[in-house]
Amino acid sequence: MDEQARPPRTGDAFGRVLRRCWEAGARPGSAFEVVERDDGHIGVGDAARYFTPPDDLSALDRWALGRARGRILDIGCGAGRHALALARTGSDVTGLDPSPGAVGVAADRGLRVELGSIAEPPPGLGRFDTLLLLGNNLGLLGGADRAGEVLWGLASLARPGARLVGTGMDPATDEPEHRDYHAWNRRRGRLPGQLRIRVRDGALAGPWFDYLLVDPDGLRALAADTPWRVREIEREGRDHVAVLSLGH
Amino acid sequence: MDEQARPPRTGDAFGRVLRRCWEAGARPGSAFEVVERDDGHIGVGDAARYFTPPDDLSALDRWALGRARGRILDIGCGAGRHALALARTGSDVTGLDPSPGAVGVAADRGLRVELGSIAEPPPGLGRFDTLLLLGNNLGLLGGADRAGEVLWGLASLARPGARLVGTGMDPATDEPEHRDYHAWNRRRGRLPGQLRIRVRDGALAGPWFDYLLVDPDGLRALAADTPWRVREIEREGRDHVAVLSLGH
Repeated sequence: MDEQARPPRTGDAFGRVLRRCWEAGARPGSAFEVVERDDGHIGVGDAARYFTPPDDLSALDRWALGRARGRILDIGCGAGRHALALARTGSDVTGLDPSPGAVGVAADRGLRVELGSIAEPPPGLGRFDTLLLLGNNLGLLGGADRAGEVLWGLASLARPGARLVGTGMDPATDEPEHRDYHAWNRRRGRLPGQLRIRVRDGALAGPWFDYLLVDPDGLRALAADTPWRVREIEREGRDHVAVLSLGH
Repeated sequence: MDEQARPPRTGDAFGRVLRRCWEAGARPGSAFEVVERDDGHIGVGDAARYFTPPDDLSALDRWALGRARGRILDIGCGAGRHALALARTGSDVTGLDPSPGAVGVAADRGLRVELGSIAEPPPGLGRFDTLLLLGNNLGLLGGADRAGEVLWGLASLARPGARLVGTGMDPATDEPEHRDYHAWNRRRGRLPGQLRIRVRDGALAGPWFDYLLVDPDGLRALAADTPWRVREIEREGRDHVAVLSLGH
């Protein structure tokens, strides 16, 4: 019977989770994000965290937002929790997300937001003084094979003197199922924290993508052959904010 | 890359979810039950519902518990929410569950509980005046091909004059992803509400099993060639309690 099981349909699973949570008033317990990893691991998070009000953002997130200035792009903005916090204080901020559902929710919440990604920005997006990769979106660097391309893509969105402010997570953990995965990654030539994941919701699955957990030293190494240099690191346990800028 | 994904390990995923929830004080939001269906559908429920305190049980559950008498077996007892409600009022109740993790948690909570199933009851379990299939556990009838065997198995656990008290759910729904699944079931010769599911948790997956959503008419039909007869039905929306007893 196992062999007869059908795969899920590919679609905007992440966007649908956000939409359902938003329609339930962003109430905790109303919608869950299910993340499947390519070792068969399933993780669950409450989608309400994508709607955290500005005053409830973590100290690290608030520190990161404090580094934003000028024309700001929030990359992978989701439902807009970070960008809306900036917009509220008068910042010139635009959101960017590849999920049509996320873009729809963020727009409903009053954010100026565009559909697209670093690799495929919408026409006319222009350049920015601050590029944000919050909510652990330094993960979008993907892996050693892709990070250079992503960082060069970010440079193409940057004005002279721009900064990149991102949050990331150290992959080191005592959790056996994650340690097993990191060991498997090493055996197949990937960075230990290079997660291959997709979002699942009902009969929908989003596309598989690589999402990188990397510590500050790893980030410095990935940036070495790019125009970006790490200038500041602020840590809190396994989490950190990195501020990078262009040039030597 | 999709082809290179590994399957999860088979294990007691359900028991691990219950254990984690229990160790977090059965707090809502502390552990989630992820149910995968063989069409790729993923559903998520808060595991705290397996720890509902007696006073917070639904009216239908309380009606069902009111039909229990004599020596009582709670089949698929999970963390023991129903059996503990009966034990608190002095009933002679034993729990039965095939999940070692569930049995461990139920025992920690003070329930007399045995590891096993209808098909494989533990030695010396004996016979009962009331067999409970609560928490939608009429679903354990499985399907048209298995229900007879399950009902005969239940009869072998029954004392003369015993009753079977179970809760079930009507499969009829307006939800497109469930309607598609019911149609697929019909095409492959299964009952519409015959769910093929397994529990997933982290890198673990429980075994695939059939779980049947059936309305009272369907239940009567499944019981026709068995010693059981449906005597009472109590409905509440899509949910119902059925009381069956032995003999004509």
